[in-house]
Amino acid sequence: MRVAIQGEAGSFSHEAAKRMVPGCSIVACARSAEVFDRVERGSVDAAVVPIENSLAGSVAEHFDLLLARKVFIRQELRLRIVHNLIAAPGVKMGDVRRVFSHPVALDQCRDFFCKHPKIEATVFYDTAGSVKHVIESGLRDAAGIAGRQAAAVYKGRILAAGIEDDKRNFTRFFLIRKKQRVVRGANKTSIAFTVKNVPGALFRAISVFALREISLSKIESRPLRGRPWEYVFFADFLRGDDDTARNALRHLAEGASPVKVLGVYVAA
Amino acid sequence: MRVAIQGEAGSFSHEAAKRMVPGCSIVACARSAEVFDRVERGSVDAAVVPIENSLAGSVAEHFDLLLARKVFIRQELRLRIVHNLIAAPGVKMGDVRRVFSHPVALDQCRDFFCKHPKIEATVFYDTAGSVKHVIESGLRDAAGIAGRQAAAVYKGRILAAGIEDDKRNFTRFFLIRKKQRVVRGANKTSIAFTVKNVPGALFRAISVFALREISLSKIESRPLRGRPWEYVFFADFLRGDDDTARNALRHLAEGASPVKVLGVYVAA
Repeated sequence: MRVAIQGEAGSFSHEAAKRMVPGCSIVACARSAEVFDRVERGSVDAAVVPIENSLAGSVAEHFDLLLARKVFIRQELRLRIVHNLIAAPGVKMGDVRRVFSHPVALDQCRDFFCKHPKIEATVFYDTAGSVKHVIESGLRDAAGIAGRQAAAVYKGRILAAGIEDDKRNFTRFFLIRKKQRVVRGANKTSIAFTVKNVPGALFRAISVFALREISLSKIESRPLRGRPWEYVFFADFLRGDDDTARNALRHLAEGASPVKVLGVYVAA
Repeated sequence: MRVAIQGEAGSFSHEAAKRMVPGCSIVACARSAEVFDRVERGSVDAAVVPIENSLAGSVAEHFDLLLARKVFIRQELRLRIVHNLIAAPGVKMGDVRRVFSHPVALDQCRDFFCKHPKIEATVFYDTAGSVKHVIESGLRDAAGIAGRQAAAVYKGRILAAGIEDDKRNFTRFFLIRKKQRVVRGANKTSIAFTVKNVPGALFRAISVFALREISLSKIESRPLRGRPWEYVFFADFLRGDDDTARNALRHLAEGASPVKVLGVYVAA
């Protein structure tokens, strides 16, 4: 099975894809839009995208793409984010003067840089890409910060494992496919909807779940792209594709328009 | 008045601060936590922080800091984000081979790079910082992308103005101070609250506004820092500090605990 990810091979998306679809082959794409294009066109079988990090928050662009594109969430995964210092084989900890990584990763490893004041943190566009750069350029005084998959892909050596400050660092990933299909045991639904900008509109919208004792596990408003300060709501509720859920969604559509079911899947 | 911002002088936060507090002096801080520290300690009079961009979404870290720190939102501003190509005086468009900027800014100027395929986009940690770097290093083949304030601060020349792809690009800023004070005419309130993880809890929480015909203009759930997949809700409602609003907040506190009023201010 061919699975598209955004960013370089060896990234956390790569790790998530390997766990969700063991044995899959990875198609690395530069841009998130390309990942979704490929799923819609059918040039890959699926894609794995990060949607929310427990420390950094939502990946806004992926919410927008889930709303805009004809794709369906089929699986959910929560991955513990472990950052590692990775260098070319033979490079020792004492040799390292510069460390490259994505700004979010550098920011999540502040304690490491405090303990090693002689090492300079340098911004790079991608975590796995920083390891690729360090190893392919043959740098002997530099390392990258990335997940362990990056060491495997680029044949790097892990000089220090688990250097993230906060161990309660998780990212939630979705596996998306073109075809809408609901697996047996699916017990969670992700939707997007807009409501009229009148008092009580959101209240009436979420009443359709409360009245049926359906638990909302997440709700988030996002500005509607291109319409500043109008909002679309993204919500997850803990229910699969059954009569109660269908009634709630029909009820929601009476007042909120449009309602899009982004996926129905097994809760991670 | 001394106003702290995160990032280099000349940034969009600098522009926002100048509009909110004409004649203020800017205190540039490397980290957002330092900005909030300074407001709490009183080493500055206020701070101006971006909270939400109409294209990129919320600035998660600033929501977390508003929740955690003893500060109060006193003003709101919506700033149109205009990106400019800025180089050292004497450098011409035809000389430019590399353009530095923050990844979000580079991403918002894709059309420019399509039209100029010989120019390479290079990631930098900050928009204004990229202009500072280009000018202070005396680079003759490079430019930065930033707001016009950066050209003024670093004495650069704007080679191309308004190069952002989407003109509907706005950022919402808050002015925060240590002291809780509500100005006359304040008609908008920002709050944060958590609810028990039971069905209908959020419904009951927002019913306190609907029952009083108070309009919610935004609601967003954010993971609680350090408690993966528990959520805090950030909401804005269109009402100042009057009896109706106070009753609603008292009602909310009965079921949602804790409730924090982040600020009461005049809607932008």
